[in-house]
Amino acid sequence: MTISLAIEGSGFTSKTRDEVRYFEHALFLIDEHGVIQSVLEPGDERYQSEKARAQANGTYQAIANGSYLLPGFIDLHVHAPQWAQDGTGLDEPLEVWLGKYTFPTESKFADEPFAHTVYEDLVTRMLSTGTTTASYYATVHRNGSLVLAQEAERLGQRALVGKVVMDDPEANPEYYRDASAQAAIEETERFINEVAKLNEHSVQGVYPVITPRFIPSCTDEALRGLGELAERYKTYAYIQTHCSESDWEHGYAYERYGRSDTHMLREFGLFTERSILAHSVYPSEEDMRVFAETGAIAVHCPLSNAFFAGAVAPIRRYLAAGMHVALGSDISGGYNPDLYGAIRQAMISSRMLETGVNRELSAGERGVEGSALTLSNAFYLATAGGGASLGLPIGRLEAGYAWDAQVVDTRHPGARLPIFEPNEPASDIFQKIMNLAVPENVRTVWVQGRKVVDKG
Amino acid sequence: MTISLAIEGSGFTSKTRDEVRYFEHALFLIDEHGVIQSVLEPGDERYQSEKARAQANGTYQAIANGSYLLPGFIDLHVHAPQWAQDGTGLDEPLEVWLGKYTFPTESKFADEPFAHTVYEDLVTRMLSTGTTTASYYATVHRNGSLVLAQEAERLGQRALVGKVVMDDPEANPEYYRDASAQAAIEETERFINEVAKLNEHSVQGVYPVITPRFIPSCTDEALRGLGELAERYKTYAYIQTHCSESDWEHGYAYERYGRSDTHMLREFGLFTERSILAHSVYPSEEDMRVFAETGAIAVHCPLSNAFFAGAVAPIRRYLAAGMHVALGSDISGGYNPDLYGAIRQAMISSRMLETGVNRELSAGERGVEGSALTLSNAFYLATAGGGASLGLPIGRLEAGYAWDAQVVDTRHPGARLPIFEPNEPASDIFQKIMNLAVPENVRTVWVQGRKVVDKG
Repeated sequence: MTISLAIEGSGFTSKTRDEVRYFEHALFLIDEHGVIQSVLEPGDERYQSEKARAQANGTYQAIANGSYLLPGFIDLHVHAPQWAQDGTGLDEPLEVWLGKYTFPTESKFADEPFAHTVYEDLVTRMLSTGTTTASYYATVHRNGSLVLAQEAERLGQRALVGKVVMDDPEANPEYYRDASAQAAIEETERFINEVAKLNEHSVQGVYPVITPRFIPSCTDEALRGLGELAERYKTYAYIQTHCSESDWEHGYAYERYGRSDTHMLREFGLFTERSILAHSVYPSEEDMRVFAETGAIAVHCPLSNAFFAGAVAPIRRYLAAGMHVALGSDISGGYNPDLYGAIRQAMISSRMLETGVNRELSAGERGVEGSALTLSNAFYLATAGGGASLGLPIGRLEAGYAWDAQVVDTRHPGARLPIFEPNEPASDIFQKIMNLAVPENVRTVWVQGRKVVDKG
Repeated sequence: MTISLAIEGSGFTSKTRDEVRYFEHALFLIDEHGVIQSVLEPGDERYQSEKARAQANGTYQAIANGSYLLPGFIDLHVHAPQWAQDGTGLDEPLEVWLGKYTFPTESKFADEPFAHTVYEDLVTRMLSTGTTTASYYATVHRNGSLVLAQEAERLGQRALVGKVVMDDPEANPEYYRDASAQAAIEETERFINEVAKLNEHSVQGVYPVITPRFIPSCTDEALRGLGELAERYKTYAYIQTHCSESDWEHGYAYERYGRSDTHMLREFGLFTERSILAHSVYPSEEDMRVFAETGAIAVHCPLSNAFFAGAVAPIRRYLAAGMHVALGSDISGGYNPDLYGAIRQAMISSRMLETGVNRELSAGERGVEGSALTLSNAFYLATAGGGASLGLPIGRLEAGYAWDAQVVDTRHPGARLPIFEPNEPASDIFQKIMNLAVPENVRTVWVQGRKVVDKG
């Protein structure tokens, strides 16, 4: 084992779901595969000798005082093509928004040069605000979807990428859908193999994702076929779809099947420990047990939910039920490409669920007690929780984990955080970073030991 | 009249509460007092001759393609000393948060060098994200409060500044309160005169504000005395306080007086057209009529309200009732010093009020129909609405208004907005700016014709 990077710095990583650990001048020894081999504290026996050795061989880097290391963020729900319309059209209900804005935008990604421009811009932007892992929906176009996987691989982001399946001619516009269920399944399988091949050259990991858009846009034949692919490629393909996002979507499965979409996705073989279920706002108690049993991931997208879900997902209940929960930006249902925004909105939305919103009701009947998340909870979802839910060694700055990390400079000119006391407690600094950091504060980002952002 | 600045650019300004006007290559002619004398469109007769004249005499500046002019933002609720604790302690109810975090922080501002450091940093930060006018609570200390007024004056921000009054020995800690009601009134009057004197040298306007913290922290004697000052100095002093922020605060006035705080503030002479009433979440129908009759301003602070108010202020109802409404960051009850954040959270919170938050209720009984604000509404509150509510000629890029403006560069490297189409509609660009701009995108800011931010 060779140590190719030795980084000394202070910062924060999740200890548990409820607790954040502060480390001061820790020395991270990272091997040639980008994996943290050891984390030495200043009191450790080997600290001085390892530091001296790294200084001598040129692998040593010190993080400046006032700058802090955090794990890279994990964003498990991103519609990459929607970056082109990000921030617009949010005054419509979900069904209208899809037909009027989203499908026309996504249909443009048959044009590969256009896809390249948009995807390069998005991946660059997300990396520059510390998102080191993302799970992407591309479009129905296999070639355009491959462009996204290639861009993520080239720019160094750990990425899960899906070619979207939406084959039902009744439910999707003629100009934007799969040619047939059979074609959707074949194209998906070809895409899985193409990404697997791409991944052979990747440092950080680029994974194919089986991606039925959601039950309402797919035929049973397609869903069944994708379930079979999920079984066949279960060692390296993930699965993603939308689950119980809105009243409308949740009700839809009951109308079509008399059962919840959670139940039906499981029947089709699409609800496993490798399933990434965006939104999951309305699962019943029984559905929640299915989540916990299978190990499937509920991806909380609080900003998008404010616009399209009609309610706040009760995340504390999900955690108490033993469900895996991660965070998502849901570009462009949520416009913010920066996962700091999702952490903040998760806090805000949970607090609004706790206290309620309608002043005409009495304080006691307005909200749902026990709903509020802490900052430590939200940080966990964005880092260690997301990593654990994927079954990947990411999201923690600990031995055995990938060196996916970001440096936040609290003293950057023009974006200085309000830290005025020489001995400000680390817990306050953590809160200030979580609530106040802007993209300018994120200066350096690594994925799997490779420096992918360096703002100088 | 001399034209000292001629700026050609495209951008956005409110037309009405519901409509935003886009202008393209308009020529703004600004006089030596920083007031817009004319706005010429490219088709106007004088356009070419005025442009040529300005180019010849060196007063001409062109805003680059891809950059857009917006009015400067107006933030009518800021606790300036709380910048030192911004982002922390948001997991407590209001009463605890005040005693455990806020009063200890504010008490440090007896130290003028410390006050200078914090206030300079805050005013600089707010200007750099386009906030050209702010209404500030300082602390109980008259000298420290004057430091804030001086810093705003020096750095060029239009500012309303209040020395906080909190004199009730039963309600405030011994280490942080006015010595007596009499002392509070005398110190306030002295502060009014000191700020009036400072304002004689100011380009942009620095106004004294009579600032009883809120009814629960003041004696009747102090409130009466401040009401008398409000009458005496009504030509240039404003009034600010908190109004019906939380269930607790709203209930407090009923317990003490058997009437609402709106009613009692009016009785004390503190509820006039110059009154800036932070939060105003719970006013009754009758209270709302008092707002509309007097012309007092309800300052909506949506982020802070998510943490401390227990409900969402029904802003559409307020507007329909003819109330003046403005926006506030409420640092540090709200941690975001950037009014773009308040615009976004106003949209988000109003949408959550519209659809509700608790999934256990049916969709029909969950929310309050007709609550959702549009982006144009929220932009209006942050600009033209705020200006109109103060009775100042600010918040619009129109003839007769002060040149308080910001330039947003949508193509700034590292913070490029997702605009990929050469002919993207202006309405989409407006939405992308409102939802996606980060501090880096704001490059230049003027207040009253003076350039106060220039990021080069």
